[in-house]
Amino acid sequence: MKSKSLMLSNMGAAPWKYLLLAVILAFSNVVPAHADDHEGTPADADSVAVAENVDPPPYEGSYEVFTASDGFTLFTLNNLWILVAAFLVFTMHLGFATLESGLCQSKNTVNILFKNVFIISIGILTYALDGFNAMYPGGDMGIDWNGYFALGSWFGVDPADTAMITDHYNPGYTWWTDFLFQAMFAATGATIVSGAVAERIKLPAFMVFAILFVGFAYPTAGSWKWGEGWLDAKGFYDFAGSSIVHAFGGFGALACVLILGPRKGKYLDGGIKPIPASNFPLATIGVFLLFLGWFGFNGGSFLSADPKLVSYVCVTTALAAASGAVSSIVFSYMACKKPDLSMALNGILAGLVGITAGADVVSISDSIIIGLVAGAVVVFSILFFDKQKIDDPVGAISVHGVCGIWGTLAVGIFGESGDPEKPFTIGTQFLGAISYSIFAFAFAYIVFSILKAVMGVRVSEEEEDRGLDITEHGQEAYTN
Amino acid sequence: MKSKSLMLSNMGAAPWKYLLLAVILAFSNVVPAHADDHEGTPADADSVAVAENVDPPPYEGSYEVFTASDGFTLFTLNNLWILVAAFLVFTMHLGFATLESGLCQSKNTVNILFKNVFIISIGILTYALDGFNAMYPGGDMGIDWNGYFALGSWFGVDPADTAMITDHYNPGYTWWTDFLFQAMFAATGATIVSGAVAERIKLPAFMVFAILFVGFAYPTAGSWKWGEGWLDAKGFYDFAGSSIVHAFGGFGALACVLILGPRKGKYLDGGIKPIPASNFPLATIGVFLLFLGWFGFNGGSFLSADPKLVSYVCVTTALAAASGAVSSIVFSYMACKKPDLSMALNGILAGLVGITAGADVVSISDSIIIGLVAGAVVVFSILFFDKQKIDDPVGAISVHGVCGIWGTLAVGIFGESGDPEKPFTIGTQFLGAISYSIFAFAFAYIVFSILKAVMGVRVSEEEEDRGLDITEHGQEAYTN
Amino acid sequence: MKSKSLMLSNMGAAPWKYLLLAVILAFSNVVPAHADDHEGTPADADSVAVAENVDPPPYEGSYEVFTASDGFTLFTLNNLWILVAAFLVFTMHLGFATLESGLCQSKNTVNILFKNVFIISIGILTYALDGFNAMYPGGDMGIDWNGYFALGSWFGVDPADTAMITDHYNPGYTWWTDFLFQAMFAATGATIVSGAVAERIKLPAFMVFAILFVGFAYPTAGSWKWGEGWLDAKGFYDFAGSSIVHAFGGFGALACVLILGPRKGKYLDGGIKPIPASNFPLATIGVFLLFLGWFGFNGGSFLSADPKLVSYVCVTTALAAASGAVSSIVFSYMACKKPDLSMALNGILAGLVGITAGADVVSISDSIIIGLVAGAVVVFSILFFDKQKIDDPVGAISVHGVCGIWGTLAVGIFGESGDPEKPFTIGTQFLGAISYSIFAFAFAYIVFSILKAVMGVRVSEEEEDRGLDITEHGQEAYTN
Repeated sequence: MKSKSLMLSNMGAAPWKYLLLAVILAFSNVVPAHADDHEGTPADADSVAVAENVDPPPYEGSYEVFTASDGFTLFTLNNLWILVAAFLVFTMHLGFATLESGLCQSKNTVNILFKNVFIISIGILTYALDGFNAMYPGGDMGIDWNGYFALGSWFGVDPADTAMITDHYNPGYTWWTDFLFQAMFAATGATIVSGAVAERIKLPAFMVFAILFVGFAYPTAGSWKWGEGWLDAKGFYDFAGSSIVHAFGGFGALACVLILGPRKGKYLDGGIKPIPASNFPLATIGVFLLFLGWFGFNGGSFLSADPKLVSYVCVTTALAAASGAVSSIVFSYMACKKPDLSMALNGILAGLVGITAGADVVSISDSIIIGLVAGAVVVFSILFFDKQKIDDPVGAISVHGVCGIWGTLAVGIFGESGDPEKPFTIGTQFLGAISYSIFAFAFAYIVFSILKAVMGVRVSEEEEDRGLDITEHGQEAYTN
Repeated sequence: MKSKSLMLSNMGAAPWKYLLLAVILAFSNVVPAHADDHEGTPADADSVAVAENVDPPPYEGSYEVFTASDGFTLFTLNNLWILVAAFLVFTMHLGFATLESGLCQSKNTVNILFKNVFIISIGILTYALDGFNAMYPGGDMGIDWNGYFALGSWFGVDPADTAMITDHYNPGYTWWTDFLFQAMFAATGATIVSGAVAERIKLPAFMVFAILFVGFAYPTAGSWKWGEGWLDAKGFYDFAGSSIVHAFGGFGALACVLILGPRKGKYLDGGIKPIPASNFPLATIGVFLLFLGWFGFNGGSFLSADPKLVSYVCVTTALAAASGAVSSIVFSYMACKKPDLSMALNGILAGLVGITAGADVVSISDSIIIGLVAGAVVVFSILFFDKQKIDDPVGAISVHGVCGIWGTLAVGIFGESGDPEKPFTIGTQFLGAISYSIFAFAFAYIVFSILKAVMGVRVSEEEEDRGLDITEHGQEAYTN
Repeated sequence: MKSKSLMLSNMGAAPWKYLLLAVILAFSNVVPAHADDHEGTPADADSVAVAENVDPPPYEGSYEVFTASDGFTLFTLNNLWILVAAFLVFTMHLGFATLESGLCQSKNTVNILFKNVFIISIGILTYALDGFNAMYPGGDMGIDWNGYFALGSWFGVDPADTAMITDHYNPGYTWWTDFLFQAMFAATGATIVSGAVAERIKLPAFMVFAILFVGFAYPTAGSWKWGEGWLDAKGFYDFAGSSIVHAFGGFGALACVLILGPRKGKYLDGGIKPIPASNFPLATIGVFLLFLGWFGFNGGSFLSADPKLVSYVCVTTALAAASGAVSSIVFSYMACKKPDLSMALNGILAGLVGITAGADVVSISDSIIIGLVAGAVVVFSILFFDKQKIDDPVGAISVHGVCGIWGTLAVGIFGESGDPEKPFTIGTQFLGAISYSIFAFAFAYIVFSILKAVMGVRVSEEEEDRGLDITEHGQEAYTN
């Protein structure tokens, strides 16, 4: 794992160094991580994605035997909760679609909605094709789990295979539930990028990028921790994905935004011309739905309905969101002398992103502090990127990227490590946060640069003026 | 069952023949189906609407005895899931309301919303009054289940009757839960019609039609399969209602649209003048909510929370929806050279309607194929009906009617019949699909023709020009 | 309890008498109610907020011992349902936000959304700070539950305290779940006020008012019944809060509206000039989400997933909502000769508010009657307040205040008291309804009068003309 020290000492370097690093990182991982997986702990082979402290009870026999067993009701209950959590995370995609539509100009709304419909659809399909296998490469359930490029092996799955639908697979849910919950997560990365690049990206370029980002980059990086890869071995802790999902999406977005450049007319003569949100009710609907969905995003990430764990995490999640909003209201008022609705909305999201990494390992008062800090961070981060002429129409880089890093570090600052064998520290958290951020940035930078050269990534000035809805789709979002 | 062969040989006939057929069908059913019900299998009398392979455990005693019994926790869990599924199906009604509002012109939006508020309200009430009894006519729970016209018998129900709230009624849920879940389904048929007839139907005519369609036609036809009627005896399979709910609604809509005629100005001099959607964010919210609700629509249709069944069905549902969208995007791009948002949205719905009949009996790869086909079918069906000058503002006939038939046939093509005593075949599926489509068409044609003669079904040209919101409601959807 | 007779004989008195009454009421309560709490029944100390008829099984040992115990699965299930119910009640806050935005003018929409974001955030935080302790002051779970002003004691809570996360705390859920569910309720009161005072209230005044109303007044009054205070001892019954939440919010709103006065231009030369809703789709989304959320509001109020209780309550809730809508449609048509969408929407809410107090103790046919009456009451109440020049842009006083009282009284009229020791009567119901209404009115009147004197509560005429969005927030809800 030489890549680690290399990485840490290069944080201030130029983009091309990140790219090099990312290649090294990715490469250093593909080989040893999977060597680990396949050689390391064969006894654990069945417990992919299972909380370590739960022993799957031994299981033999048919599904009917299982339904008559003692633990069947609890298994059914856990399975149901993860399904419901998957539905809640699905709702977040509607939240993203409405938030982005609301914060952007109405002339680009159809384009944004189209991208969101595309992302959730292609996200589920690519995750079925290869993402699920790539992200959770272990196991030996009679399926050929052959690592990253297990393309299509999923289709050989036998729905009647009893092992997949009993606690032999996992004490808490079936293989199918596992897939659905993880698939709903998978599309999130591309959705985050979608908001930041809105209003000037070419649709075909985005579609290709989204497929690669969701179908390849996310499961690859996700496996570092959740697939029991090298970051997991280091003790890195990221409960529901402040880094794995949010910083990943946010820094992928940053790379794309740097290549795309700002929207026309946004930075004129050194000044910043705000481009107002077109539909605040829509944006507010989006944030409330994201808040709602986050109860599944975090609460489902135990992969069980354990009352101690799930209840606690829902409370820390709600408190961080609430304090994020209050903090953003206060700090944006101090900065701009106005009670700013978009900042209040971003404050809720900042608190949610911030608590995601450590929702289960921080105290109640810490969850409020994490939210308050996140709410302040997001305000100043948005103002900072705007000053740097890095144009992010929805604030996704700040909300998901910067607050994702904050949330990951907060685990090291506030959290109490429950696993003595793999304790997390501020160092492991820094390593993880920065690994995900750099990898996502580098991957997006390389892919987007290639797409720029091959097919172009930005619409023409005339198209941008008229709006993507008319020029790319021949449809308008709002008519009489 | 002579009506069957008669029906099959008359598919290309003129509308009046369908009407005759429907009368025969309805009549041939009322008598023998219920004769079957009441004479057939008295041992099954308790298991109305129960999956055949589950034996209700014997139950004796008070509710307190039941709560202390072994199976109480699993019963409570199953019951809770069906309740949550009912809430999800309820959400679909909001989805329909926003989808239709978004796809129609803003001058008719209040009218559309009013119809949707009316439908869900009157749907629940008529289902309480007579629909629930009519659809599930069997049983002897101390209530007078006297078949179709059990009007008001429901009100004599004793909430303290222990049988209704224990596994004596059903191993998976209480009588109350059963009612709520089925009631949420019931209003769907009229909602489907609502979209197709939008922007020119007279409100009073629609209200009368909706009451009859939801309160009488749907439970009558629904009982053919779900009430253990003649189609059930034939082996016809329709898991959650591709035919029973969707084709039923879609072909009822077709009849109404044929009688109503197209919107003014839609087909001029042989050309088609597109009437653009007024609010795409609203339409997109609608489709995401329908996608979300479908997890309850399909996932709840096992009437238990069995982890094997529910997980699997949620996965096939999600995959069909996703592949429906991708397919519609591709085919509509090929047909129109534009990435069309309304087609992408209809693609999701097409996939969902398509998978509804066989979500539990097709393989994973089949679910993707079903979605891909549905996504193509809906594009060409919408273009086809438009060429025929059959004006369906939201594409409901194609999405629900045509894809409903596709989904029902797909069960025969792809599915593996699990019940050796009543195997389904492509023949049973064709029979069922066509029976529901013709009955709904004929019922709607007759009722709507009578309404046309008695009270008029179409607003005046002047009202259509000004919009129904101002002329019928004195309200506008959007003001300053 | 001398205050009771005093109160009953003064209902027609002038506002200042209500204020006096409220002070007496509040005072008479603070002392004896808590004396009762602390002296009365030590054996019940553990059963705070627990249904009286459920005995918490004895519990000893670690959480691991608990997870292996017989009742653990049912506990987990109950806990999960209350969590899901909390998510549903959270959804109601989005419903309120969109309903209010939709029914008001677009120039005040950002302001309304901002208030709603603020209320849910500050509501959760103040409930954590002191509200939860103040409302449920009993118990001795190793925490210093020292009554009303237990400010901050919450932060000393030890997440590892086993008692809080097992059935030692409550047979149905953990302390954390209890907090979350109750916190979601708490913010509702201020949200109800928010709608009635919209379009002319000063934001800072509202923010201060909301903090006091949610953080102090609601938990104080709530404890009278749900904290086992004096109204509970009297036998007063309010299942999920027709009075405790809705009449409380509605009459608090009335006081604020009386002080604020009507919107400029609303009542000219004695005539009433309707100010039309700006966005009916948004308002309709709001009402459907409130309907959806109400399944959690009522269904979760058993604090268990008992299939008998939860199923039944969901059915009475749905029937009352549906009949409320139908009734409002009919009566508003009779009154105004138009099918009025806003009245139909308010009819749904009226039915829901009406059934809330007695959803579990009235029969099915009674639930329909309660909804029908509520749907009529809300129409005439809205017309009445409008004639009195009491300007309530969203009808909150009628929907929540008047129908809240109706629902509370309906328990006495229709309900069968299940608790022979503390039977409710029409008298107890009248006492409770009037106590909550007067207390909320008086509290709001005093606080709002002070705010008027200290900081002003109404924006300038010029600000009102231009709209609060531009003048207070510098943002517009809808732009291009």
